[in-house]
Formats: sequence, C-alpha cells, structure tokens
Amino acid sequence: MQTRGYLTTLRGGIAMIGTSFALFEAQPVVAQTQGSAAVFTSDGKLQIPKGFRRWVFVGAPLTPNGLNNGEANFPEFHNVYIEAPNVEAYMKTGQFPEGTVIVKELTRLLNPTFADGSRIEPSGRGFFNGAFNGIDLTVKDSKRFAKTNGWGFFSFGHHPEPYAATSAEKPVSECAGCHIQNVAKTDMTWVQFYPLLHKRTRSKDWDTPLSR
Amino acid sequence: MQTRGYLTTLRGGIAMIGTSFALFEAQPVVAQTQGSAAVFTSDGKLQIPKGFRRWVFVGAPLTPNGLNNGEANFPEFHNVYIEAPNVEAYMKTGQFPEGTVIVKELTRLLNPTFADGSRIEPSGRGFFNGAFNGIDLTVKDSKRFAKTNGWGFFSFGHHPEPYAATSAEKPVSECAGCHIQNVAKTDMTWVQFYPLLHKRTRSKDWDTPLSR
Repeated sequence: MQTRGYLTTLRGGIAMIGTSFALFEAQPVVAQTQGSAAVFTSDGKLQIPKGFRRWVFVGAPLTPNGLNNGEANFPEFHNVYIEAPNVEAYMKTGQFPEGTVIVKELTRLLNPTFADGSRIEPSGRGFFNGAFNGIDLTVKDSKRFAKTNGWGFFSFGHHPEPYAATSAEKPVSECAGCHIQNVAKTDMTWVQFYPLLHKRTRSKDWDTPLSR
Repeated sequence: MQTRGYLTTLRGGIAMIGTSFALFEAQPVVAQTQGSAAVFTSDGKLQIPKGFRRWVFVGAPLTPNGLNNGEANFPEFHNVYIEAPNVEAYMKTGQFPEGTVIVKELTRLLNPTFADGSRIEPSGRGFFNGAFNGIDLTVKDSKRFAKTNGWGFFSFGHHPEPYAATSAEKPVSECAGCHIQNVAKTDMTWVQFYPLLHKRTRSKDWDTPLSR
C-alpha cells in the first residue's frame, strides 16, 4: 500500500499513519460532529463526500453562461444535495444539524443552440443537463467555522471531472460573504430556491421511510 | 376504518377488501414485479409512489413557459427521480429492471422578472425552483404495457399540490408516442438529459454505499 500521508477521518474510526495503518475506535482528531459526511485531511483540507449523488436532491438553480455575459459565476445548473436526516431536521427545526454537508454539483448545459443556452427538444424549448462541471460545498461546524456563521465553504473546481481531490476553506470574499449578506436568517442556505425546505412541511410523501 | 374500496398492492402483501382487511403473504393479484414502487388499484389506476423525493435525482430539464408561448407542455422544471437500485442496474446493463418507476416532478419558476422566466439573484441571472407543480411518471412492466415498448405512462396533473391520488394509463398519443419516436433505443428514457445515466460510468462517488 502506498503511503497516503497523514489522514484523519471521523467517520470510520480509521487512522492511516505513515506506511502503517490501524483500525480502532478512535476519538475524533479533528473537532467534527460524529456521523458527518465531512472528512478533513490533517492539514484541514476537505475531501469530496462519498455517495453524494444518492443524497436528497433539493433544487437545481440554473444560471446559464448565455445570460451572464458568457461566463456565469457558477456554470450552469447547480444541482443541490443534502443527506436525508439533515433535510428532515431542517424541516422540523429550521436549522441544520452540526456536521451537515450541502453539496452543489454543477452541470453544463447540453449543446445550446440559442444564445441564452437553450435548445429545442420534444418537450419544448428549454435547458437540459449536460456534463458534470464541478462541486462547491458547505459544512456546518459552529466551532471550526465560528467566524463565518458556523459554516465553512469549499470548492473542488468549476470544470469537468475529475474534480480536485481536496479543497482548502475558501476566503470569506469568495463564498461566505455572500451567504452572510443574503441568507444568514435561513441558516446560511438559499432555502428559498429549494421547495422542500422552503415549505418546511412534512408531506405525506416525505414521511415515508426510505426502505421499502 | 373507512372503506377504501378494493385495493391491491404488490409490495406489502396487504389486501384490503370491503370493510375488513387481512395481512398475509399474498401472491400478487396484479402482474407486477415484486419490489416495484408501482402500486395499482384494482381498477388499474396507479398511485403516487411513496418517498420518491428521497430517490436518486438524475436531472432537471427546464422548459420555461416564457420560452414556450406562455404555456410549456411540462411547466417548468422537470425534476427526475429513480430508485438507486434501478439507476445502478441501468448503469451496468443499459436497461432498467422490470418494475422500475421514473418520477418527473414539475416545479414552477420562482417569481420571474424577465419574459423568459428568469430573474436576477446573487448567483447571477437565471432560473430558480418555485412551487411544486405536478407529477408524471413511467412504469416498466413488459407484460402489462407490452403495446408501448414495455412502459406505462401516467400523470397526476400539472398543478400545485395536492396532486391527483391516482392516474389511469395515459393514451399513447399523450406520452408513449413521443418516447417511442425519440428514445426507444435507450429503454424509452431520455438518458441524454441525465448525466449519470448518459455516461453509464460507475464513478468513485457512485460506488460508495448509501449507508455510512
């Protein structure tokens, strides 16, 4: 096994140290809520959380390049995923639990034919998901990210796969500042764009367990 | 308990008959694959599957009313959900298993300010999910829907919640015809709009189990 350096993870209780590795019921080395999907390297960089494409989808804002001077800040669909227990908690309380991770995976538009990025398909003129195009995400940890209302902001690039393996916390000016200015009252999250969270009503559908 | 009429379900092995009910390991009364999310009433109408908002999101085509003469056929975002095992199977084989259900839940656009349906938000000019606006869905059952390439097509309305409780199969001219004409080669499904299915590559992310 190749040395992967010093890696601390809070979820599996696995620590790899140098070229050896050990399994044990470790105390978290980093102050992260148990059970969080956020896994940090020992130098404080975040990894892309595993399995996020199976998390609960809450909304897909779309900012086409064609409507943003050819280069949107987030090109172009923003598919947003949150783990089910954290969605559930928000619907009950209006706050996300410590450790919540919100993933925004971008996709480009599929083969635009109009200047705005749209094209015509049998369903009508519109916008269709093209290739995956990067990940931004936020992690709630009130202690670690106390300076930015309890949330940390990360980016694994705005480009096709493969994405960056890790991300350092982004400067306030690039991410947190805009959230603080606009959505501090809804736990730093744009719930107005996510119908399930915006409603905060536990529909008959939602109350059904995941398993059949 | 109020009489709910004759209801047959293939998943729980539960049959409610008249005013009495019984739990038993029933043979399916309707020829539907075991484990399918599709539950039909005895007169062949389909119910909205439970918990679909927790299924795997595969894509969100957007056909704004503003780009479709004021009235899109599917207004406006089409959020598409498929259960994880069926996504998994498609990625392996290029075919969906018997019993697969694909749900398309519509949402309106959030408070348009431009004629195309877009508005300006801190992330740029674009389109944002508004209120839920109806459900269309398809069920794969090669015997039941043999006339339409093995898929049945249903709609619970294109309007805000509450949706219709049940749907009869829609006429070929309204749904199946367009799928037969355009996507017969990809198991009647618009996989070109769903990056995960279009790629059919099992990414490192996807291979991670659902459970932590």
